[in-house]
Amino acid sequence: MPSKSNLEALRKEVRAITNEIMRLVGLRLSLTERIDKVKRSMGLPIVDYRVERDLKSSVIDTCKRYNVDERFGMRILNLLIEEAVRVQKSSMDESERTISVMEMFTLAKRMEEEGKKVIHLEVGEPDFGPPEKVKRVACDSISKGFAKYTEPSGLSNLRKSIAEYVNERYKIDVSSEQIAITSGGRFSIYASIMSNLSLGSEAIVIQPAWPAYIDCIEAISGRAIVLKTKLEDGWRPDLESLSNLVNDFTEMIVINYPNNPTGKVLESRDMKALVDLAKDRGITILSDEVYSEYSFKPSHSILEFDDVKSICASSFSKSYGMTGFRVGYAISDVNSIRKISRIQALASTSVPEFIQYAAMEALKCKDDVKRYANSVRRRIGLVCKELSKMGLSYYAPDGTFYVFPKIGEDDGFNAGKFALDLLKEKNVGVAPGTTFGDYPDFVRISACQSERSLLEGLERIGEFLE
Amino acid sequence: MPSKSNLEALRKEVRAITNEIMRLVGLRLSLTERIDKVKRSMGLPIVDYRVERDLKSSVIDTCKRYNVDERFGMRILNLLIEEAVRVQKSSMDESERTISVMEMFTLAKRMEEEGKKVIHLEVGEPDFGPPEKVKRVACDSISKGFAKYTEPSGLSNLRKSIAEYVNERYKIDVSSEQIAITSGGRFSIYASIMSNLSLGSEAIVIQPAWPAYIDCIEAISGRAIVLKTKLEDGWRPDLESLSNLVNDFTEMIVINYPNNPTGKVLESRDMKALVDLAKDRGITILSDEVYSEYSFKPSHSILEFDDVKSICASSFSKSYGMTGFRVGYAISDVNSIRKISRIQALASTSVPEFIQYAAMEALKCKDDVKRYANSVRRRIGLVCKELSKMGLSYYAPDGTFYVFPKIGEDDGFNAGKFALDLLKEKNVGVAPGTTFGDYPDFVRISACQSERSLLEGLERIGEFLE
Repeated sequence: MPSKSNLEALRKEVRAITNEIMRLVGLRLSLTERIDKVKRSMGLPIVDYRVERDLKSSVIDTCKRYNVDERFGMRILNLLIEEAVRVQKSSMDESERTISVMEMFTLAKRMEEEGKKVIHLEVGEPDFGPPEKVKRVACDSISKGFAKYTEPSGLSNLRKSIAEYVNERYKIDVSSEQIAITSGGRFSIYASIMSNLSLGSEAIVIQPAWPAYIDCIEAISGRAIVLKTKLEDGWRPDLESLSNLVNDFTEMIVINYPNNPTGKVLESRDMKALVDLAKDRGITILSDEVYSEYSFKPSHSILEFDDVKSICASSFSKSYGMTGFRVGYAISDVNSIRKISRIQALASTSVPEFIQYAAMEALKCKDDVKRYANSVRRRIGLVCKELSKMGLSYYAPDGTFYVFPKIGEDDGFNAGKFALDLLKEKNVGVAPGTTFGDYPDFVRISACQSERSLLEGLERIGEFLE
Repeated sequence: MPSKSNLEALRKEVRAITNEIMRLVGLRLSLTERIDKVKRSMGLPIVDYRVERDLKSSVIDTCKRYNVDERFGMRILNLLIEEAVRVQKSSMDESERTISVMEMFTLAKRMEEEGKKVIHLEVGEPDFGPPEKVKRVACDSISKGFAKYTEPSGLSNLRKSIAEYVNERYKIDVSSEQIAITSGGRFSIYASIMSNLSLGSEAIVIQPAWPAYIDCIEAISGRAIVLKTKLEDGWRPDLESLSNLVNDFTEMIVINYPNNPTGKVLESRDMKALVDLAKDRGITILSDEVYSEYSFKPSHSILEFDDVKSICASSFSKSYGMTGFRVGYAISDVNSIRKISRIQALASTSVPEFIQYAAMEALKCKDDVKRYANSVRRRIGLVCKELSKMGLSYYAPDGTFYVFPKIGEDDGFNAGKFALDLLKEKNVGVAPGTTFGDYPDFVRISACQSERSLLEGLERIGEFLE
């Protein structure tokens, strides 16, 4: 019998239960603090994924029993875990913060404003700029007034042109509805992660890696699970270890080949094994392919594998020297693309119209792309030769415009401090290895400058290392 | 005594408590479902903010008692409330979805691709485009190769120019560190909401309102609390009602004057009262001032009030006819700006460099801005005259380029259906009132077309209404 008093009684009950939940939350937190103390005294790490996962499985069972939506149960649990980790971490010593590439770049720019001549080996921005034709089309489009809002997913002609380009390149068959134009490859990554992960889902990131992946995952309170690779293994990801990291809560694996910062391209059989793993476990692969035109040996696109759930993120920044144009794209199934476009609409409506016309023109500039790639390849060769002369070990890149040498040999080496000191004392910017994961012995050198600048920069690094 | 077995015992306890929490969560959900049924049979709405708030207060007490971080307690509680609402809503009939301005615009564009001539009264995009000088600087900058990454917060010279512009205009003293350049005013709104609200915090939105505010609030699972205004009150927000909506969980009030869609400018004394309220309660005001140059009577900027926590979001889109350039800015305290820039860095690195140079030039084009504003004012006058002839009631705008007439008189009127039918039958796009809140009797007419187009469009609306 519905009535006002009935309603009040039910509400009272809800309130009592809610407060009991909070009491238990408090109890739980005090217990995890005790666990933290024990762990600390035993020298164990704060986060133990195995324990977390056991807990998750047990919670899933409870959710089933009491008819709680499992994804919702996971969100609650992950909030609880996150808070416990936050409380535990806040009681630690503030460890030294990692300096980012953007911060190095900003510092270097400030030094230049003060009149110093800095050699930029830190930032992945080619010096050659866009092809002349691209500039011309951008200007013409501005003059003609093509500076209006477009559909959030981008001009349909640009999406069609990209579809044709990838279809021809990879012998596949994607439609323009499977493509969204985004503010750089970065927005494709951002929106892909935003729309595919929820609070507390897990995504595996193979390190060393561009920090944006983990930044984006953590921005939505997802959990980034790291698979480390090593120079000694030629930066090859161990697929058995990868498989062991996968569990029911893994939603995504992020890959990036040719790889920033190592220059690695994945072998065909590894790529296939990785795709099979993702397919078997129903995991989405987010493949960052912004360096695909800078590949010195055959490199697979995730687009070639049509039976796995995937998002290919790409960009005009690197291939066409268009970093400052901020235009990229995502390719996936129609539904995922719709979600990505919705985030683009929410955050910035659309990419500027005339920039989309410039991108359309860029797709025609195949000769320029080849020229750029050849030039970078020569530079990479040069960098490698110099690094060898210095006696440093590194992996000879299969692609990208980076080399990732090991420069620290002893345990206490700190790439962040090294990079800062090098910038201040020798006016040379490099990206510290710690930006890309737990690689305090490494720095990333970007071959985006003229050969002369590269040689000069490397010489100064040599002097500084002595 | 720390030991492995001790650790295991504690972990077991954590697991038991976690599962007990989930059991209670399930129990809570089944209770809220029962409440839902009772409510429905009594004809009561799903969401009852008063009840929610009582619950929140009681949970805060529990958090204090059991030493749970209050903000964390609120996140858990809000997840619980959100899920309960989701479950309750999912059992409702799927009500007709509101059509957005962007969807109307996309539909209209598709019709144009099919060769139809559409009169665009739906989108807030001025037909005059940017001043010639702005176009020229954009092109020159592209030619000169100013197409590189910039600091995420934007070129320091542009930030300085904006500081000078607002300091002169409002007799204030903001520094360039208080400014972030963003991908349109939209990104300023997006990043402000992202960085200031957390899951479950409340933000008050005064409707009718641009839907982006609520979209952004809901994207981070915040709770948008709506204060409705009415045509009969000249769209004036009732400050007592506003004050009643404020509670300990209110983090933000979003204001937008001159207002989209009503054209209202807030009276000085109302603005002051609103600021005082926010100040007293420690609430941040997010003030969307993208139409500030289209103000036909004095309009305050939030920047004039220096003792309240605020973010001013603005843009080059409307003032300078630069919609398709996607460049705007946020002004706030240094700390908030840092957070906003961090989100810009995460999502898209920076606004294209040459667009930032174009924006710098735009700030010098004061005569063009005046010309644009005068032209829009004339058009608004024209629209009002025609609407009066049709016998429709509306508020004569104090600013913006919109008029928001009431076109439906009976109860069952559906502005969304009206707008779609009008587009299909008369090739005229308008934005349905439902886009801006619970206003099914209204449509927004945008005076962004030539006077001839406006007259033609209004004539067709008149025919269609008969």
